[in-house]
Amino acid sequence: MAQQIADRRDVDFVLHEQLKIADLTRYEVFEEFNRKTVDLIVSEARNLAVKELLPCFKEGDELGCRFENGTVKVPEPYHRALEMLRDGEWTAMCDKPEWGGQAMPATVALAATHFFYGANYPFMVHNLLTHGAGKLVETFGTDEQKKIYLKKMYTGQWGGTMLLTEPEAGSDVGALTTKAVKNADGTYSITGNKIFISSGENDLVDNIIHPVLARIEGAPEGTAGISLFLVPKYRVNPDGSPGEFNDVVCTGIEEKMGIHGSPTCSLALGGSGNCIGTLLGKENKGMSAMFVMMNEARLQVGMQGFSCASASYLNALNYARQRIQGKAVGAARDDAAVPIIRHPDIRRQLLTMKSYTEGMRSIMFFIGLMEDMVKVCPSSEEKERYQGLIDVLIPVAKGYVTDRAFELCSMGLHVFGGYGFTKEYPQEQLLRDCKITQIYEGTNGIQAMDFLGRKLCMNKGKGFSDLLKEVEKTVDSAADIDDLSGPAGILERALSRLKTTAAGMAEAIQSDNIHPAFANAAPFLDVTGDTLIAWMLLWRASIASKELGGKPKKKDKAFYEGQVKSAQFFIRNLLPVSMAKMDAILAMDTSVIDISDAAMGPK
Amino acid sequence: MAQQIADRRDVDFVLHEQLKIADLTRYEVFEEFNRKTVDLIVSEARNLAVKELLPCFKEGDELGCRFENGTVKVPEPYHRALEMLRDGEWTAMCDKPEWGGQAMPATVALAATHFFYGANYPFMVHNLLTHGAGKLVETFGTDEQKKIYLKKMYTGQWGGTMLLTEPEAGSDVGALTTKAVKNADGTYSITGNKIFISSGENDLVDNIIHPVLARIEGAPEGTAGISLFLVPKYRVNPDGSPGEFNDVVCTGIEEKMGIHGSPTCSLALGGSGNCIGTLLGKENKGMSAMFVMMNEARLQVGMQGFSCASASYLNALNYARQRIQGKAVGAARDDAAVPIIRHPDIRRQLLTMKSYTEGMRSIMFFIGLMEDMVKVCPSSEEKERYQGLIDVLIPVAKGYVTDRAFELCSMGLHVFGGYGFTKEYPQEQLLRDCKITQIYEGTNGIQAMDFLGRKLCMNKGKGFSDLLKEVEKTVDSAADIDDLSGPAGILERALSRLKTTAAGMAEAIQSDNIHPAFANAAPFLDVTGDTLIAWMLLWRASIASKELGGKPKKKDKAFYEGQVKSAQFFIRNLLPVSMAKMDAILAMDTSVIDISDAAMGPK
Repeated sequence: MAQQIADRRDVDFVLHEQLKIADLTRYEVFEEFNRKTVDLIVSEARNLAVKELLPCFKEGDELGCRFENGTVKVPEPYHRALEMLRDGEWTAMCDKPEWGGQAMPATVALAATHFFYGANYPFMVHNLLTHGAGKLVETFGTDEQKKIYLKKMYTGQWGGTMLLTEPEAGSDVGALTTKAVKNADGTYSITGNKIFISSGENDLVDNIIHPVLARIEGAPEGTAGISLFLVPKYRVNPDGSPGEFNDVVCTGIEEKMGIHGSPTCSLALGGSGNCIGTLLGKENKGMSAMFVMMNEARLQVGMQGFSCASASYLNALNYARQRIQGKAVGAARDDAAVPIIRHPDIRRQLLTMKSYTEGMRSIMFFIGLMEDMVKVCPSSEEKERYQGLIDVLIPVAKGYVTDRAFELCSMGLHVFGGYGFTKEYPQEQLLRDCKITQIYEGTNGIQAMDFLGRKLCMNKGKGFSDLLKEVEKTVDSAADIDDLSGPAGILERALSRLKTTAAGMAEAIQSDNIHPAFANAAPFLDVTGDTLIAWMLLWRASIASKELGGKPKKKDKAFYEGQVKSAQFFIRNLLPVSMAKMDAILAMDTSVIDISDAAMGPK
Repeated sequence: MAQQIADRRDVDFVLHEQLKIADLTRYEVFEEFNRKTVDLIVSEARNLAVKELLPCFKEGDELGCRFENGTVKVPEPYHRALEMLRDGEWTAMCDKPEWGGQAMPATVALAATHFFYGANYPFMVHNLLTHGAGKLVETFGTDEQKKIYLKKMYTGQWGGTMLLTEPEAGSDVGALTTKAVKNADGTYSITGNKIFISSGENDLVDNIIHPVLARIEGAPEGTAGISLFLVPKYRVNPDGSPGEFNDVVCTGIEEKMGIHGSPTCSLALGGSGNCIGTLLGKENKGMSAMFVMMNEARLQVGMQGFSCASASYLNALNYARQRIQGKAVGAARDDAAVPIIRHPDIRRQLLTMKSYTEGMRSIMFFIGLMEDMVKVCPSSEEKERYQGLIDVLIPVAKGYVTDRAFELCSMGLHVFGGYGFTKEYPQEQLLRDCKITQIYEGTNGIQAMDFLGRKLCMNKGKGFSDLLKEVEKTVDSAADIDDLSGPAGILERALSRLKTTAAGMAEAIQSDNIHPAFANAAPFLDVTGDTLIAWMLLWRASIASKELGGKPKKKDKAFYEGQVKSAQFFIRNLLPVSMAKMDAILAMDTSVIDISDAAMGPK
């Protein structure tokens, strides 16, 4: 059977040949994760993905979630899928064994997650939220809070969520109005309405633990007055079992374009005056707690979008090899029809999908490795350097990657022609599901603002400049390789122009040009992302080129040649277009700001 | 209430100030269509669109079509909508009064259709198909065929379809296997299976007339042996009423990503050996008959996609004006939150949508005007020139426009943030519905091949070069206008580069480079389309700039300023990126062709 979800050879290539993650065994916490163990983990994850999660991908979409009498029924097969996920101990891969975690390197966990998301990410959203909420408890909870909640969350016995958005407080979290009033016993009574809560209510678990952003009575307006609370659906009995209902009422679920298996809930807290929460972390420090979790959550959303694109690519490739339609370009009258992979326009779309997904895979796993290095590296200076790279890369991994992923899913649908529009094939669902990754966990507009307004100049621009130094290293070493000197030269020019563009943008946001600069925030994130894709592809091609100089096995030979072609294609055809975009950004045209609201169109 | 679907002021601008369509009254056939009449027609169309079609847009999506006992039930409110469409005599706007048509200029009909499609194009597909089938009868039918079918089709009493695609014959029509065997009475017995038939079966009309592509027994293989037949669902009694069932059996409908109100049917013809058709046109000339209809059908599909984008833009603009969220960039701590139209990233998206939809509107209506000129202009030389422009513009109107339209619908969804993903707002449906416009009526890959392989070099490239001369005229006259000399200079450079690119492509397809050239067919169509958008925006801005030099009314002033800004924005920010794409095309990189199928990825 054809490979699905993700190219295993490519996953292994990034883990072992590009990032050499077995080197992590040097560090005590990861000493067990040698190549054999890592390969076994990835194989097991892939098995679970193909055998248990993928089969209920379409069914989950069709069944959707049902809101009945205040409860939400998720698609029936999700129950078994969660059981399998828990049995395989996949619910807290990188966390401490004392709380039920597996203490895996983040890079390896990302490879496993890649298969899970590519198989059925609407189902996986549930676990993402649970784990994220657990991480908040682990990071900010008291010993008591951890004892009550943490292990049950990390092992997936209980669920978790994140109660942030309100009808009038979406991108502007500081506008929220949910209220917390301190009780005599130190707990808080919570009242308010939250919307867009993934897994906010569901029948998968016995209890749901809601971290809730709310404002303590009398606290300042805006983000400075927001605190974080832990609010369980059912209060917990002394023996640890779910007890009295805590007045967290689900008032409805959204009808959506995609991720139908993932319930998006509206919750009313304390409607009967009976919702009790405990403070998580410090008063008025809710937003900074959120920020701690943000990198993880945004990286995961990037993984969701990227994994949709990866699955869409392999489906398209498999289909293009089998579907016979039309003669080849320039064929004689009597020539037979060919598989559509022979048609140049299909090949262009396939190679576009291939090169982007490969570049994305390297970016995502690279961030994983940086996270592992932050954990293990001994010097604080190095730690800061790795953390700086992560901070700069997160908006790329979330914003840039999901924007491109949606475009790739669209191409992946087109390869199927009219069939791609039907529900007979997974392509249209991948496209629909992928759409929300561009929006939730901070819209991609927010990502672009974060990149320009915070990340570019953070620590005097050290993170950004450290990142470009990494790119330079690759360029320098590729310049001497025959097949790659041309592409290396183009990337060198792109890099130099990106530096100029970044300097121009950094200056602009400190000047009267701040508005046109922010109008170019998204294009700026785009050109940065393109440059990084080119970097990763050139890095990959450098390794491949070396291997091709030896005596690779036949199968490896095709793989390595494919690496060189991805780099050549992307850098010669797509990167130059991005360079023109850099020039347009630098020109700092002001039309977007100058045009009056009235001139935008009719009222 | 805010304007919806399309900016009426802009529609009027294109019709009267840009294309001056009242000048058509010079010609006898159009002498009644003075400005007052045209405005009345557009107002009536808009009324119908807003009051009758738009209200059942969402309902049609939710109800969808039901396949029950061999028949298809369309969404219930479509019945009334069709009645209104028929009562208003909108079903054959440009056709001869003797067959029930209104003899309207094509340009005016496009303006009306724009509102209909923007309001509810899944419903309108039914009429598009009926009219297209009617046109085949009018063009190729015998007097007898016309007498039996035509008026009933043009007035919408009976429906029509187009039976082309088969499971193994999609883009490759020549592979079809549906068979026709001549009977003693001159009719043909038809057997075969057709798929993806829009409106192939439905409960909207008393009879459905199917033009069917089939191969007469013994005819050559491929497209050279295809004939066209007229196959009614019910044979027609001597008194003109529907009679005996003609063995056209609907075997199912597709579950699709969008256009749920438009049934996509599988039809079995002659399963009981009892399906009779009459030849339409000449034996073995079915494909050329199809080609005659193709321009109309492709222009209409372009209009569908474009109208989705137009509606999505106005929805986004209205929402951005109302939705309060977040402080302005650079605001002080105590400043209030602002409508999101004040945020630079939202403005960039809005102006991107605005400039593209305006440019598209001009391109589409310009094609309409060319069609009118073909009809009325006295000299055959001029007729050929106009027809040449149409032929070159059709793949732009279908391929380029729908590709961009889908991207714009995506932006239009993003402006709504998380709400855009929900079914509470129309944005996600517009995106889903828009998707198929990139695929049906010849995939956009096919459009790009048509553009490069046929249209570019047709009549020694006369059509293409005539088109560029039109662009030149606009550039020359804008070069002297203060605000526009800069953009005019950029467009001049783009035009010159497009010429070089086109010459390079024309040479390449005659050489060994034919494969890499066809791999660049889609990018080549893209850069041509971008240049044409820039042309139209500069043309518009030239008119607006002149008006601004006078004493325009306050409301007009904002509109005209908006025209200048659209041109400045598009030409300064987006066109330069397209120029870099032209260079990349000319470089004629061969990676897409060189990479082996095995290197594309795992089997």
